[in-house]
Amino acid sequence: MKKSLGAHTIVYPSPVFIIGSYDQAGKPNAMAVAWGGICCSKPPCVAISLRKATYSYGNIMARKAFTVNIPSEKLIIQSDYFGMVSGRDENKFEKSGLTAVRSELVDAPYIAEFPLVLECTCIHTHEIGLHTQFIGEILDVKVEETMFDGDQPDIQKIKPFIYDMTSSSYYGIGQKLALSFSIGKEI
Amino acid sequence: MKKSLGAHTIVYPSPVFIIGSYDQAGKPNAMAVAWGGICCSKPPCVAISLRKATYSYGNIMARKAFTVNIPSEKLIIQSDYFGMVSGRDENKFEKSGLTAVRSELVDAPYIAEFPLVLECTCIHTHEIGLHTQFIGEILDVKVEETMFDGDQPDIQKIKPFIYDMTSSSYYGIGQKLALSFSIGKEI
Repeated sequence: MKKSLGAHTIVYPSPVFIIGSYDQAGKPNAMAVAWGGICCSKPPCVAISLRKATYSYGNIMARKAFTVNIPSEKLIIQSDYFGMVSGRDENKFEKSGLTAVRSELVDAPYIAEFPLVLECTCIHTHEIGLHTQFIGEILDVKVEETMFDGDQPDIQKIKPFIYDMTSSSYYGIGQKLALSFSIGKEI
Repeated sequence: MKKSLGAHTIVYPSPVFIIGSYDQAGKPNAMAVAWGGICCSKPPCVAISLRKATYSYGNIMARKAFTVNIPSEKLIIQSDYFGMVSGRDENKFEKSGLTAVRSELVDAPYIAEFPLVLECTCIHTHEIGLHTQFIGEILDVKVEETMFDGDQPDIQKIKPFIYDMTSSSYYGIGQKLALSFSIGKEI
């Protein structure tokens, strides 16, 4: 039997994306976002949703660019901090001790210490409600060179984590369960 | 040092959403989608991206409704199957042995055996490129009553899994790492 919870934003898994942007003065900012995901294969695009009230909203609207930085477990304290404080009030790079690197492809900074980063140019914005959705075309994916398995990034080395909104907590990635487009052949 | 991979759709984690819809004749269909995520808090909305070539695309365009069904690990074979075959060619509910339940809220079926389902009415479509993005307003979340921790769904009981596009495989959810909006206070 199923129990009805009403209208809520609950899905598993939800990501922890750290969004890099520049403000008007060129100060880098980083913000944590859980509302997002890949949204198109050609061109390769990622969607992120931000409230208008956030500092990053104005940054991305003005610069038409952002980065998506995927954290490792060892960056969990900094990642949570990026979601707790506004760039309007603090210089989050200075406070966290992390390094903003100017992208050569888009007008946004990525985070040197993060294992996997996407450099995105904002090609669409969609007003949905409380949140505005930014569609970023992914111009490049950069991955720490020690975190590959052959020629592909290795999720087991990168150790990303997920956001669970129902327990307000972060979970790691568990065991490999099966190959995709493969185990379903049993049916 | 980071290595540049070029323009690719790589983020961690990516979800495994099973999308329920009805075709013109009222036949239920289920399709696996990894391009998606929550996109707005008010109204609560989830975004999913589909290629026009899919059978579900026409279903959702016509019915303006879909469900998002979150699988448990024990449904991994059926979930993978739903991503391998088109509803144009097979009755995926009959083949998989799973049960389509008519939603009382939207013109789409959800899957009885899945632990957590969202019933959505499609309020926007966005053409991005190869994929079209459907924005679903979440009218209700239904959760198996044995899978709660107090009054909240329990991710450790539900046991969802993630899709890793870099190794073409599925991973489970690991350990709880930290509380969100909390551990960042150390900075």
